[in-house]
Amino acid sequence: MRALAFRDHLEFSQNYPPPQPSFGEALIRVSMAGICNTDLEITKGYMGFSGVLGHEFVGTVEQINAPDCSLVGKRVVGEINCPPVDWSGPSSHAPGRCVLGISGRNGAFADYCTLPVRNLHPVSDLIPSRRAVFVEPLAAALRILDDIHIKPSHRIVVLGDGKLGQLCARVLRRAGCDIILAGKYPEKLALSVSLGINTCLSDEIEEIADYDVVVEATGSVSGFKQALRLLRPQGTLILKSTLADTASLNLALVVVNEIRVIGNRCGPFAPALRLLTEPDMHLEQLITSEYPLEDGVVAMQTAASNESLKVLLHMEE
Amino acid sequence: MRALAFRDHLEFSQNYPPPQPSFGEALIRVSMAGICNTDLEITKGYMGFSGVLGHEFVGTVEQINAPDCSLVGKRVVGEINCPPVDWSGPSSHAPGRCVLGISGRNGAFADYCTLPVRNLHPVSDLIPSRRAVFVEPLAAALRILDDIHIKPSHRIVVLGDGKLGQLCARVLRRAGCDIILAGKYPEKLALSVSLGINTCLSDEIEEIADYDVVVEATGSVSGFKQALRLLRPQGTLILKSTLADTASLNLALVVVNEIRVIGNRCGPFAPALRLLTEPDMHLEQLITSEYPLEDGVVAMQTAASNESLKVLLHMEE
Repeated sequence: MRALAFRDHLEFSQNYPPPQPSFGEALIRVSMAGICNTDLEITKGYMGFSGVLGHEFVGTVEQINAPDCSLVGKRVVGEINCPPVDWSGPSSHAPGRCVLGISGRNGAFADYCTLPVRNLHPVSDLIPSRRAVFVEPLAAALRILDDIHIKPSHRIVVLGDGKLGQLCARVLRRAGCDIILAGKYPEKLALSVSLGINTCLSDEIEEIADYDVVVEATGSVSGFKQALRLLRPQGTLILKSTLADTASLNLALVVVNEIRVIGNRCGPFAPALRLLTEPDMHLEQLITSEYPLEDGVVAMQTAASNESLKVLLHMEE
Repeated sequence: MRALAFRDHLEFSQNYPPPQPSFGEALIRVSMAGICNTDLEITKGYMGFSGVLGHEFVGTVEQINAPDCSLVGKRVVGEINCPPVDWSGPSSHAPGRCVLGISGRNGAFADYCTLPVRNLHPVSDLIPSRRAVFVEPLAAALRILDDIHIKPSHRIVVLGDGKLGQLCARVLRRAGCDIILAGKYPEKLALSVSLGINTCLSDEIEEIADYDVVVEATGSVSGFKQALRLLRPQGTLILKSTLADTASLNLALVVVNEIRVIGNRCGPFAPALRLLTEPDMHLEQLITSEYPLEDGVVAMQTAASNESLKVLLHMEE
C-alpha cells in the first residue's frame, strides 16, 4: 500500500506492507487524514517513533476480525489509544498501550490502518469527511472542559493561534466565558475574529496577572513562560503542547503564585462528534491546504510553515 | 537593635534601626526564630530582597499602634503576608503585599519586628517556644491538605528529607494515606522511621509511575524530574520548593501523563496551632542546632549544610 512513514527521515512509499487486523480489530481504508503538530514533533524525535505517521483520519471499515461485523462498510473515525484488552481504566493512560501513528502502531497516513473495533465511531451522513477529520483534535480541546470546571465568569486567554489554539477558543467560548485568543499571525487571528472571538497579538497582551485560566497551545516554551505571567494567583494553566525540546525554566512562580498546571491531552470522541454538527464551529475554515498522499513529504513541510493551519492528506482520488 | 541582615552579603549588626509599628501594627520583641530554606535562597538572590531576614519566629508583643491593645504582653506567632489594608482576598496573594523578611518588610532575625495585629496568633502556655517556632512551616505543610483532597487510600511519596519534607510527611500521614518519605540522608530519614513513617533513599525508590501524589520538597530540579517519573497518569505533583535557579526541563511528560502540578506555599496558621499540641508531631526532634543571634552568620552556614534540619536563633539569654 501507499504510506508516509518516518524512520530517521520522512519518506513516501508505494509498497509499504499493509497492516493485518488482529482479533478484535478492524481494517480501515483511509480516505482522508489531518496533519497534527505531534506528527511534526515526531519527525524531530518526539516519542522515538518509527513507522507510518498519522492519527487524525476518516475512513471506511473494510474488514473486521471479530464476530460482530456490523461496522463493515461504515464511514468511521477512531480513538487513537489502544490499551491491552484486559485494561479497564482510561485508554489514554493504559500501561503498554499503542497509539495510532505515535507509539507502537502504524498510523493513518496510508491506504490502510487498523484499530480495535471498540475505538471506532461511525460518522453521521450529515457530516462531510473534511469536517469529521477534526474529531480527534476537537476531542483534545474538549478535554479541557472534562478536566477542569470552566465557569461562565472565567476570564481566559488561549495562547497560540495555531490549529489547537483555534479549536480550544471555539470550544471554550461555548462555556460562556470571557475569552481572548492570542497569537502571532494576524491572518490566523482573523479567522476567529470572523466568528466573534476576541483576539490580540501575543506580544501586545497586557501581562497583568489576572486571568483565571490560560491555555498554552503555542507549542513553545515561551508560551509557558508568558502563561505564568498572565495568570492570577491560584489560576490554572492548561498545558496542551507536547514538545520534543527541553528548555530552561524557573518554576518559582508556580509556587509563589500557587498556580495549577494541568497537563491535558486526548479527549472524548462522543461529545466531539456532537460538536461537529454545531453551526458555530466552522471547522473547515481551518483547512489551509490539501494534498494527495503521494505528496505527503511536501504536505508535512507545508504544515510546518507559519502560514498553515490544518493540512489534509487525501487517499482517494 | 541587633539584627541579621542581607544586602549583597549577610551581616550581623549591633545597631540596626528598630522598626516602628504603623497604625494597626504591633511591635514584637522576638525571642526565637527558625532558619528556612527561603532565607538561604534569598542570600543567593531569590526575590531580590535586602534587609533583615527571617519569617519564622516566636515573640512577645511589646507595643500596639491601634485602639485594641489586648495582645500586649502576649506570646505570639505571626502570619508573614501583609496585604494592603483594603484587601479582602487571601493575604498570601494580595498585590503589593509585603512579606516578613522576604519582600518589602524587615524580618524576625532581630530583637524586634513589626506585623499587622491581625496577623498575630497568641500561643497557648502549653506550647514551648521551641515548638511554636514551627508554626509557619507546619502551616505550609498543611496547605497541601487545604489545597487538594488527600484521600486515605492515596499512595504518596514525599521527596526530600529536609525540614519541609519531614513536616509534610508528618502532616500527610495523619490523613491515613500510604506514605513514603524519600531522601538522601539516612540519619535524617531515621527521624521519621522513629515515628513509624516509611522511608527510603531517593535513588532506591522504584520508579514505576504509580503514585497518586508526589510532594516535591527537595529544593532541587532533579526532584521535579523524579516526581514526574514516579506519578501515575493523572497524578498530582505538589511543588513546595521555591528555587532561585532556572533549570532545563521538558514538560512533555506533564501533558502526556496529564499530570496536575500544584504550586503550593503559605498555609493556614489556625490548624497549624492546633497540630502543635498533637503527640505525633515531634517537632522539636527536627532542631539540629541553636545559636545566639550574634552568631547568625554561622547559623546560616550551618543551616545550609546537608546535615542540618531546623536551625534556631535565640534572641534572649
